[in-house]
Amino acid sequence: MTTNLATLSPVELRHLIRTGEFAGPTSGLAAGYTQANLVILPKSWAYDFLLFTQRNPRPCPVLEVSDTGSRKLHDFAQDIDLANDFPKYRIYRDGILEKEVTSVADIWQDDFVSFIIGCSFSFESELLAAGIEVRNITEKVNVPMYNTTIPLKSAGPFHGNMVVSMRPISESQIPVAVQVTGAMPKVHGAPIQIGDPQAIGINHLDQPDYGDPVTIKTGEQPVFWPCGVTPQNAIMQTKPPLVITHAPGHMLVTDVVNATLKY
Amino acid sequence: MTTNLATLSPVELRHLIRTGEFAGPTSGLAAGYTQANLVILPKSWAYDFLLFTQRNPRPCPVLEVSDTGSRKLHDFAQDIDLANDFPKYRIYRDGILEKEVTSVADIWQDDFVSFIIGCSFSFESELLAAGIEVRNITEKVNVPMYNTTIPLKSAGPFHGNMVVSMRPISESQIPVAVQVTGAMPKVHGAPIQIGDPQAIGINHLDQPDYGDPVTIKTGEQPVFWPCGVTPQNAIMQTKPPLVITHAPGHMLVTDVVNATLKY
Repeated sequence: MTTNLATLSPVELRHLIRTGEFAGPTSGLAAGYTQANLVILPKSWAYDFLLFTQRNPRPCPVLEVSDTGSRKLHDFAQDIDLANDFPKYRIYRDGILEKEVTSVADIWQDDFVSFIIGCSFSFESELLAAGIEVRNITEKVNVPMYNTTIPLKSAGPFHGNMVVSMRPISESQIPVAVQVTGAMPKVHGAPIQIGDPQAIGINHLDQPDYGDPVTIKTGEQPVFWPCGVTPQNAIMQTKPPLVITHAPGHMLVTDVVNATLKY
Repeated sequence: MTTNLATLSPVELRHLIRTGEFAGPTSGLAAGYTQANLVILPKSWAYDFLLFTQRNPRPCPVLEVSDTGSRKLHDFAQDIDLANDFPKYRIYRDGILEKEVTSVADIWQDDFVSFIIGCSFSFESELLAAGIEVRNITEKVNVPMYNTTIPLKSAGPFHGNMVVSMRPISESQIPVAVQVTGAMPKVHGAPIQIGDPQAIGINHLDQPDYGDPVTIKTGEQPVFWPCGVTPQNAIMQTKPPLVITHAPGHMLVTDVVNATLKY
């Protein structure tokens, strides 16, 4: 491919993805634009899941919900096909990963509801803009994520504990990091815990449950944020007959700039 | 009654209301505690209404949704009976007000879902704390509210335009008023319009569609906020077979202090 992906607009990227010309991770693409997680459920499961997100907005910040059966959005993208515009999807049946695919058009149902959920990619760019190093970006790995003992509020059959992401922050910069992310509640908001992993049930920072470990330097504290893996985790525990999600790191690139998520 | 209502705690007030000893407006009671609006709908209408609030969070900020059929809440009050703890309810059938009652226990259904919705009472107390006069409080009248031409996002059958409340603010204090209310998105957040009523379809400030007119002094601008009458207005236009709301001004007094609505 001769195209320089990094310079493409969101809609140009979605066109490449839609036609199958690009199926990779979206990290670093369309800089400044919001990227989002996906959960697709049949309508019969949608009320309880929407209520679950309403009750747990920190780990499950819903940016937009599609109309039932629609492959379009109203707000976060105009020229969009929800069945093709994620580079990679995961299909789960009864809570078990069946396969990864680059299109779900062939199994689309008229009763599908798509939940577009905020992602910490958005606040990482704001942290960088505030002069705060994001260690997982520096070390070119996935952010470390951990299961915790923080209970979620249940809604119908949906239940579980919160999953958190961790970024080491120098002690002098923690107040700024809290303010920067606290201003963005639609992408998880402020940290949920600072400096005491055992208080939330994390015993081994060097052994994350998802993603990769990162270096914690002298003078830094581990800072924990609610993580977008939480809704997928709760869905896996709840085991609906059919769920489609994006594959990790293979996000929707939207037309909305990150800065608007503050308001 | 010998009790001094103003000094009662939220739970003491709810007990008086529950037993029928108090059925008046709640303005000024349990100072510092969040008061809330009510919408009760049968479960078959709940998904579309919850989606409507998700799509229109500024005028319809949901604080909590009950479990289906439950007369309890989890977060905003512990010792509570949703069928009795509002001083006055309104029963609407097919979009038409049937009557006002002080209890809905006799018509309670196992499929009722209760939506507890934020109220501008919470940010008015924060404005006062910031040294900003709230004219409707000074003049001891209801805040003036207006229909606008601002379209809401539809969800299923729910649709309509936004209703706004208006408070005149001195020009020098408008930036502070924006910041104080902008910090409280769960109770309508920042203004939606400042200084130009005609831009949102309001032609006569002295003739509000709901509430009472207030004085606008030289050096003040009319400032408009999304209003909690909006969801009731949309429901009346949508005409579900059965809806229960609180009666205007007769709110739920919760156990949660206003300050926590900032986070």
